Amino acid sequence: MINGVNHIGIATSSIEGIKDLYKSILEGCETHEETVAEQKSKILSFQVGGTHIEFLEPTEPDSPIAKFIEKRGAGVHHIALATDNIEHDMQRLKDKGFRFIDETPRTGMNNTRIAFLHPKSTGSILLELCQE
Amino acid sequence: MINGVNHIGIATSSIEGIKDLYKSILEGCETHEETVAEQKSKILSFQVGGTHIEFLEPTEPDSPIAKFIEKRGAGVHHIALATDNIEHDMQRLKDKGFRFIDETPRTGMNNTRIAFLHPKSTGSILLELCQE
Repeated sequence: MINGVNHIGIATSSIEGIKDLYKSILEGCETHEETVAEQKSKILSFQVGGTHIEFLEPTEPDSPIAKFIEKRGAGVHHIALATDNIEHDMQRLKDKGFRFIDETPRTGMNNTRIAFLHPKSTGSILLELCQE
Repeated sequence: MINGVNHIGIATSSIEGIKDLYKSILEGCETHEETVAEQKSKILSFQVGGTHIEFLEPTEPDSPIAKFIEKRGAGVHHIALATDNIEHDMQRLKDKGFRFIDETPRTGMNNTRIAFLHPKSTGSILLELCQE
């Protein structure tokens, strides 16, 4: 079941460039930094209540985040919906004809299990399912 | 204090065009529809845990949402941060040099009190403060 928004992923060309800004705006929110080699990105995450706001900076020119910034500029890259059972929700959506970029769940930040829906299935919004 | 993400606002050219899609994806989430004359938009909102995912469709050609779609295409328009005291957070941020589009809080959907930060102050991300 989808039971929340796990995080909002925002593409940025420079985490250092926005860090102080968002530490001011989101004063008191816990932060976490990590490099996710598989996604060729550095991540700065703010815990804002039950949702995380994650800034993603490409670490390689062929990172999907670099390509996104080149095409659309910095901005919201994806929305991650929280699920309590990712296999169940993937099957439920596949049965309704939704397409996935990830055919099976893979490992995301903090050992979450994630899968991206194909944006052609979602009205061009990049959606991730994410199970903690 | 900022204590959550109240909602994510997504610009769409047609709520009818995405309604069934998102009712399938967000199965079981409560929905709410409203026309907000002041924003020249229709809104379809899904309650996803503690956050709302809101689709915004322009009702007039000069709606800010119409202008956004013309410039950037459909997609995430703004992120609304939940605050327990909007005056306090506005003053806190003004004191740090942040600029607001709304100098004082105004009324949003469901009688929330809202104010948009100027995107020049936030690394080009359109952020709203929202108090329920």
